[in-house]
Amino acid sequence: MRFSSSLSFLSETSVDGVREQLFTLGEIPGVLWTPDGAVGTRPLVLMGHGGGQHKKAPGILARAHRFVAECGFAVVAVDVPAHGDRPKVEEYDRLAAENQARVAAGAELAPLIAEFQAMVARQTVPEWRAVLDAVQQLPHVGAGPVGYWGVSLGCGLGVPFVAAEPRVRAAVLGLGGALASAEAAARITVPVEFLVQWDDERVPRAEGLALFDALGSAEKSLHANPGLHGEIPAYELDSMIRFFARHLG
Amino acid sequence: MRFSSSLSFLSETSVDGVREQLFTLGEIPGVLWTPDGAVGTRPLVLMGHGGGQHKKAPGILARAHRFVAECGFAVVAVDVPAHGDRPKVEEYDRLAAENQARVAAGAELAPLIAEFQAMVARQTVPEWRAVLDAVQQLPHVGAGPVGYWGVSLGCGLGVPFVAAEPRVRAAVLGLGGALASAEAAARITVPVEFLVQWDDERVPRAEGLALFDALGSAEKSLHANPGLHGEIPAYELDSMIRFFARHLG
Repeated sequence: MRFSSSLSFLSETSVDGVREQLFTLGEIPGVLWTPDGAVGTRPLVLMGHGGGQHKKAPGILARAHRFVAECGFAVVAVDVPAHGDRPKVEEYDRLAAENQARVAAGAELAPLIAEFQAMVARQTVPEWRAVLDAVQQLPHVGAGPVGYWGVSLGCGLGVPFVAAEPRVRAAVLGLGGALASAEAAARITVPVEFLVQWDDERVPRAEGLALFDALGSAEKSLHANPGLHGEIPAYELDSMIRFFARHLG
Repeated sequence: MRFSSSLSFLSETSVDGVREQLFTLGEIPGVLWTPDGAVGTRPLVLMGHGGGQHKKAPGILARAHRFVAECGFAVVAVDVPAHGDRPKVEEYDRLAAENQARVAAGAELAPLIAEFQAMVARQTVPEWRAVLDAVQQLPHVGAGPVGYWGVSLGCGLGVPFVAAEPRVRAAVLGLGGALASAEAAARITVPVEFLVQWDDERVPRAEGLALFDALGSAEKSLHANPGLHGEIPAYELDSMIRFFARHLG
């Protein structure tokens, strides 16, 4: 196995009843949020951040605080390769430059993004499974039910992760298209809440609907709202909290 | 005005803290649910029942009880012409027979349903407005904010009603298609929660999505779930309650 199996903790703080522990697992920088003074096993939500973001991006932080404070869950997030505190990856940079050239020459963007995300997922799926292994050994987390939350890049990487990881019992996904993920999506069987932005300027509407369609889950719920890629309305966060509470709580 | 402006009450019962008053308004039979002992103005939800159903169909009754018990709302439902306690309408019977013949001869069903619903709506829109007028004069209802709930036939009749009635501040609609309702839908500006059944055997998926697309509302949320026309999952009722509580409460 290429991963260290135990966490090294770097720092610990507490804000509004939420304990935040920065850690590394081998070369992977991560953050764990739990209720202050938490003891014993609890549900754990792994959150995958968006492209260009990182493990403590404002949206990740805000959702993590609410999942911990309102549900008593543990939440963990790690930097995706070439994001946050992780070094650049030359192969990714080279591919990004190549893709820019291909788009400039008239190629469609969506298949290139799909190809890129599939490549990154081959690295993140085993990384995230190792993070689950390590975090679930902590006495204030334990081996409880696991949820996954991720949209945009977090969906592109999340679909193959949820498909591969039997500990995941429920997932919030969205802002992703079928081109990247339809095959893995068909292997997902857990309940999914799936977000589409009706006026998404990055993911064509039909691609988003096709990915929802491709999910193999018997219980899946599409929530579509007007607005651009980054404009998920605030009431969807309330809905996600109830969704995870129902399936993990 | 062709309607009597005051309600005649026929009976009153109470179950689980919910008071039920059967009434007529002229020729329209209706039912009003309010919290036991309610005094003063409160939000009012008008519910439109589905085709072949009536004002006290099990689904209507179950939702009404939850809206009253959990939100303290008043809920009113009336029989659509030719449904429930109302007499047959010869013109409708004639048209239904004609439509059956046209479908047997190869005509598409959806445009015929659309035409039929538009005709019924010309009668129900003024009826339902008169019901609001009368019910809002009651001291335990009053002139508070109004919501509308209706799917299937209740959507076909509800879209023109919500478009025409400025007292309605929020609506749950769905299981209807754009053919019947796109023009009126574009005039709706209040928040809408819109339900699509992903495997609807009566309303083609693209028709349902097109009706959501046609809604003029800045805040509108599409909730799509697997299953046939009649198989809206139970968790959507929880969602509707929160939707109405947010916009009317």
